[in-house]
Amino acid sequence: MTSANDRIKGVLSPVVTPFSKDLAPDPARLVAHSRWLISQGCGLALFGTNSEANSQAVDERMMLLEAVVEAGLPTNRMMPGTGCCSLPDSVKLSAHAARLGCAGVLMLPPFYYKGVSDDGLFAYYSELIQRVGDARLKVYLYHIPQVAQVGISLNLIERLLKAYPDTVVGIKDSSGDWANTEAMLKTFPGFDVFAGSEAFLLQNMRHGGVGCISATANVNPAAIVALYNNWQAADADERQAALTATRMVFQSFPMIPALKAAIGEFSGDAEWGTVRPPLVALTAEQRTALKAKLDEIGFTMPGLGK
Amino acid sequence: MTSANDRIKGVLSPVVTPFSKDLAPDPARLVAHSRWLISQGCGLALFGTNSEANSQAVDERMMLLEAVVEAGLPTNRMMPGTGCCSLPDSVKLSAHAARLGCAGVLMLPPFYYKGVSDDGLFAYYSELIQRVGDARLKVYLYHIPQVAQVGISLNLIERLLKAYPDTVVGIKDSSGDWANTEAMLKTFPGFDVFAGSEAFLLQNMRHGGVGCISATANVNPAAIVALYNNWQAADADERQAALTATRMVFQSFPMIPALKAAIGEFSGDAEWGTVRPPLVALTAEQRTALKAKLDEIGFTMPGLGK
Repeated sequence: MTSANDRIKGVLSPVVTPFSKDLAPDPARLVAHSRWLISQGCGLALFGTNSEANSQAVDERMMLLEAVVEAGLPTNRMMPGTGCCSLPDSVKLSAHAARLGCAGVLMLPPFYYKGVSDDGLFAYYSELIQRVGDARLKVYLYHIPQVAQVGISLNLIERLLKAYPDTVVGIKDSSGDWANTEAMLKTFPGFDVFAGSEAFLLQNMRHGGVGCISATANVNPAAIVALYNNWQAADADERQAALTATRMVFQSFPMIPALKAAIGEFSGDAEWGTVRPPLVALTAEQRTALKAKLDEIGFTMPGLGK
Repeated sequence: MTSANDRIKGVLSPVVTPFSKDLAPDPARLVAHSRWLISQGCGLALFGTNSEANSQAVDERMMLLEAVVEAGLPTNRMMPGTGCCSLPDSVKLSAHAARLGCAGVLMLPPFYYKGVSDDGLFAYYSELIQRVGDARLKVYLYHIPQVAQVGISLNLIERLLKAYPDTVVGIKDSSGDWANTEAMLKTFPGFDVFAGSEAFLLQNMRHGGVGCISATANVNPAAIVALYNNWQAADADERQAALTATRMVFQSFPMIPALKAAIGEFSGDAEWGTVRPPLVALTAEQRTALKAKLDEIGFTMPGLGK
């Protein structure tokens, strides 16, 4: 494995993707939100589950990534998602991200067929790495079995690490199963494990993890980054409890529409609420309820939309 | 709803997609296999689950469909799969198929997000139909919950039929749950229900269905078509039992690799065995076992590879 020192770490946001009312992706709003996230100390895991990445065409994703890179935001803080069902799509997106200098790519396994074998998944990642054929490529595996239904086993990680120690360097564990995260941390020292939710951030740091990639980092980045920077401080547990409380508010609504509604609310730009089908935007009633709950805990998004 | 008389019916094969050893899609072999299927009385549900459609890029699928159409095969016997996770991809493929004159398109729901609402799915299909904006478009919904994990409910069908009676005209029910197929047949008279397996062909015809779209139609088309043509004959149950026995042989192996191995075996063209990851080709041992079981039931593929 390469030295882990210069690899991307910390808190990353699966950046929500703004769509205009006609459902077209909106690069200007994406750049603005990404810039705000960077200003809060948060990295950019563009095109994650919360970005509605799989609701976008390959060309749309490339156009949006180019817009964010061309805006001058730091590519060493970017880990775009590039895993699709089809090998050629994943190769195209991964090669594009590596060429643009992104710190890494976050790779879902192909997720249409269920019950596929580790042999098949190994062949998939293996073909991908060889076809991209770029030493700059750093692959972070993406384990989110409750959505993809196809998971990343310890056995698969072990085989990939043996075959591609300089390329396969980490994982995002969104299983929500701490025992699984802990097993990855223990079994593969030097392998960069990101928790899939800030609810596990402190636990992950205490066991050798490198940060988290979390939906709510879209709306609460500064506080999550502050815990990451102060995880050894005396008040770390208190900070963790506050983060989790904020997350719980968002989790009590459909997450992606709620994140977008909050950004719309706090930026004064209601068009942010738009989602692509099959997702459905929050109703006016839900928006009011969300705002009330957020007010209750004193939640704000300082500097947003400025 | 439009008159059902001139719509596509009968036995369709989710045509397996040949790849060369370097995993490139192979239009010449696809045309040859499609031509053989048509010669057996079987229609072409290209780009289905068994076609590894979701392991292909949008451009590959369009190139392959064009090859089959340009080869002069009858477009009124074609129902390509066009449902992807992303609306723009599905629109592109569906518009392309309609423009080429295909009898219909078989549309998976967007399958990345799980637990999505009927409102979201309705919005998805609705946007799609409006964006394609082509009166020639005939949509067949694709219900395969054990793979897509996102299903097509009776409520969703009802709403789509009300909104788009001239466009949403049928469904493929691959749930394997006869009670569900029967409910669709009873609830929506005039709606074209294809069983997702020939194991349900006779039952489906007896209850008002219009045929089946089945994996094993790739290898056993003539016998399945013969039952479709003779479902009211005295020996229909006997024919059904024989079809099901052949299917069981294939089902005792991973289905897609087994179909491809059989085509390789009976055409003398072993490269047919190639699959794209995450699927894995049959081992030599599995191929031998499959051949032995097929010999036992006297299975052949007459005229293949000629």
